[in-house]
Amino acid sequence: MKVAVLGFGTVGQGVYEMLQHANGLEPGPVLVRPGKDDAPFKVTDIEAVTGDPAVDAVVEVLGGTEPARSWTEAALRAGKHVVTANKALVAAHGPELAAVAREQGVAFLFSAACGGGVPFLHNLALAAQSDRILSVGGILNGTTNYMLDAMQSRGADYAAVLKDAQTLGYAEADPSADVSGLDALRKIMLACAVAFEKLPTEGLYTEGIEDLTPADVQSFRQMDLTCRLVARGGIGPRGAVFAFVEPTLVPASAAECAVKDNYNLARYEAERAGDIVLMGQGAGRFPTASAVLRDLSDVLCGQRVMMPAGCVRVAADGEGCGHPYYVRLPAELTGQLPVDRIQKDGDTARVVTSSVTVKWMHDTAARLRAQGAKLFFAGIEG
Amino acid sequence: MKVAVLGFGTVGQGVYEMLQHANGLEPGPVLVRPGKDDAPFKVTDIEAVTGDPAVDAVVEVLGGTEPARSWTEAALRAGKHVVTANKALVAAHGPELAAVAREQGVAFLFSAACGGGVPFLHNLALAAQSDRILSVGGILNGTTNYMLDAMQSRGADYAAVLKDAQTLGYAEADPSADVSGLDALRKIMLACAVAFEKLPTEGLYTEGIEDLTPADVQSFRQMDLTCRLVARGGIGPRGAVFAFVEPTLVPASAAECAVKDNYNLARYEAERAGDIVLMGQGAGRFPTASAVLRDLSDVLCGQRVMMPAGCVRVAADGEGCGHPYYVRLPAELTGQLPVDRIQKDGDTARVVTSSVTVKWMHDTAARLRAQGAKLFFAGIEG
Repeated sequence: MKVAVLGFGTVGQGVYEMLQHANGLEPGPVLVRPGKDDAPFKVTDIEAVTGDPAVDAVVEVLGGTEPARSWTEAALRAGKHVVTANKALVAAHGPELAAVAREQGVAFLFSAACGGGVPFLHNLALAAQSDRILSVGGILNGTTNYMLDAMQSRGADYAAVLKDAQTLGYAEADPSADVSGLDALRKIMLACAVAFEKLPTEGLYTEGIEDLTPADVQSFRQMDLTCRLVARGGIGPRGAVFAFVEPTLVPASAAECAVKDNYNLARYEAERAGDIVLMGQGAGRFPTASAVLRDLSDVLCGQRVMMPAGCVRVAADGEGCGHPYYVRLPAELTGQLPVDRIQKDGDTARVVTSSVTVKWMHDTAARLRAQGAKLFFAGIEG
Repeated sequence: MKVAVLGFGTVGQGVYEMLQHANGLEPGPVLVRPGKDDAPFKVTDIEAVTGDPAVDAVVEVLGGTEPARSWTEAALRAGKHVVTANKALVAAHGPELAAVAREQGVAFLFSAACGGGVPFLHNLALAAQSDRILSVGGILNGTTNYMLDAMQSRGADYAAVLKDAQTLGYAEADPSADVSGLDALRKIMLACAVAFEKLPTEGLYTEGIEDLTPADVQSFRQMDLTCRLVARGGIGPRGAVFAFVEPTLVPASAAECAVKDNYNLARYEAERAGDIVLMGQGAGRFPTASAVLRDLSDVLCGQRVMMPAGCVRVAADGEGCGHPYYVRLPAELTGQLPVDRIQKDGDTARVVTSSVTVKWMHDTAARLRAQGAKLFFAGIEG
C-alpha cells in the first residue's frame, strides 16, 4: 500500500522513515510548502496526492484545522484511506470526516491523536465492539507530566521546570495549550467519542497547572499523594457524558505514580474486561509516528472507521462526577468551601473539601478568581 | 459472523454470554462433553461444528493439547477462523496451526493465551508490522502475583497465601504450573514467537516462588525493593532469543510495583515506539472472554494470522541476558557465588551477586539444590 504524507515536520519525517521498513507499506509523495520541495518525492499541490491513482492512503500530520480538514476530506473523497495524528482536526470535524470515509468505503483512523505512542484509541475502539466502556482517562499530556514530575522530585518551581521543558523540546515556546489542560481535553474528547459514541463539545471543565507552587507540592508530600494532570471521561448517574481535565492527587499505589518524565498513561474501564491501563511515550517523532504506522498496518488488515457511526455532539454534564478536592486559597475565603480538613499557614489555607461535583469546584474557582483570588485546586482520587 | 465455542467452562460461558451483545457477532453451537448437552445450542460432536456451513468462526477454550489440537486443525481445514485462549496448544503447535490457517485463508488468533484480559499479543503483533521489537516481558501470572502481593503487604507465609488464593479461586487445587513459573513461561514463549518470529522451546529457565519465605520478604523491604514473578524475552548480544521466568526485585518507581492482587502487566520495548506497558486482569471469566471477543472483532475487520509466517522453533540462549541476583542460601555456600554484598544471619546468608547470566544463576541453583541446599533467588532489576 503506497502512503502519501501531508506535512514533513517532526512527525511527518518519522512516518516517512518508518514507511521504508514496514511490512506491506511503502512511502509515496510527501506534501510540503512551496520552496521546501527540494527532493523528488516532495510535492506542493494536494492534487498531486489526491489525483495520484498509485496512492492508497494518506497520512495527515499538518496540525491545525485548515487546510488539514479540506485536504483530508479531498483525500477521502478521492478514495484514499486517511490516518491522522491531528487531535484539533478530529475534535472539530471528526464525525463529518468519518461519515465521508464510510460513504467512500475507506478508513479514517486517528490513534496518534490521543496518547501519542500509547496504543489507546485503537484498543478502545476494538474493545467497544464487544464490551461496554464505563470510563476513560489518564495522563494524556507529556509536557505537563514532565513538569509535575520535576516539581515533585526536584522541588523546583513552575517557571524553572517550564524553562527546562522548553530547553528539552518537551514544551513549545507558547506552552499554553499544554499547561492549561486544553491539549489533554481535546484528547479525552476523542476518547469519549470512540468509547461512548458521544463527542462532548460543551460543558467541559479544564484546570491546568499554572498555579501550582512548591508549597502545594510540600502539602501533597505530607498527604502522601502525588499530583498528575489527569483527564477523565465517563457516563454520569443521569446517563450523560462528563469530561474534564484537572490536577489530580493520587496515592502511591496508583499506576499514575509510575508515570515519569514525559510519559503518558491511558486507561479505560469496561464492564467485562475491567480496568485496562496502557503506558508509553505520549509524544515525540518516533512514538507518534509508530502510532500512525500501527494504524496503517490496521488499514492493511481491513479498513475501518474509528469514530462510531452514530457519534453525535453533546454537551457534557459537569455534575456527572464528583470527589473531594485539595484547594489552596486565601484563608478568608475558606467559608466558600465545604471544608473537611483545613491547614492554615499565615494568610493561606489548604483545604480538603468534602465530595463536590466537578462543575461546582471549577465554577467556584472561576468565581473566586474573577474576584481576584489566587488559588490552586486538585481533585483527590482513591 | 456466527461463532461456535469449543468448551463451556469458565471462559467458554463468558464468551457465549458476550457473543450475545457484540457488534457483528452471534453465538453458534457450543461443543460440550456427551451428557452435558442439556440445551439446544449444545452439541457433542466436533463435526456438528466443522460441518455446519453457518459457522464462520470457532473459539477454542478447551485447554490442553488434545483434542484441542486436532479439533482446531479440523476447524481451520473446514475454512473456519479460529480464536483460542489455549497457551499450551499454541506453545506446542502454534507454527503448524498458523500454516494451516494461512493455507486456508482464515484467521488464527490467540491474544487470550497471554495476559488474559490485557491486550498484549494483539498489540505486539500489530507493532511488529512496522517497528522492531527489542524485548518483551512482564507479570504474566495472576495467581503468583496475588500471592507475592499478599506475602509482601500482609507478611503472611507461602502456605497461608496459597490457601487464600485457592479459597478465592485464583489458584487451582494443583497450583504447580502457576507457582513454578511454567504458566508464565508458556506465555512468554508465545510473545517471543509473535515479536521475534522465533518460538523458543529449549534453553528456557524458570524459577518459581515456592521457596520464598517471610524472612526474604523482610530483606526486600530493607533493600526498598518489591518482588514480582517476571517473565522476560529478548534478543541477546549474540543475536539469539532468550526467555526466562524468575522472581525479580524491582524498585518502587517501577510500574510492576503498581500491579496489585491478581493483575497482570505486559510490556514490550520497540525501537521506534519505545517502552509500551499494558496492565489489566490476567485471568477470570470475563477478562479472558473479553480478549477472545476482541480477537473476534479483529477477525471481522480483516482476518489475520498472529503467528508470523517465518516463525521457527529455536533453542533459547540463557547467556543472552544477565543481571545481579539476590540469593538466600546456607552461609557455607556463599563461596559458590560472585558476592557483591552479603548479610549473614546465623547459618543463613543473603547475598547480592555481581551481574551473572541467567543460565549461570539458574544452573548454579540447580546444582546446589541437587546437593541438598535450600535456597531462594531473585533477579534484581533497575
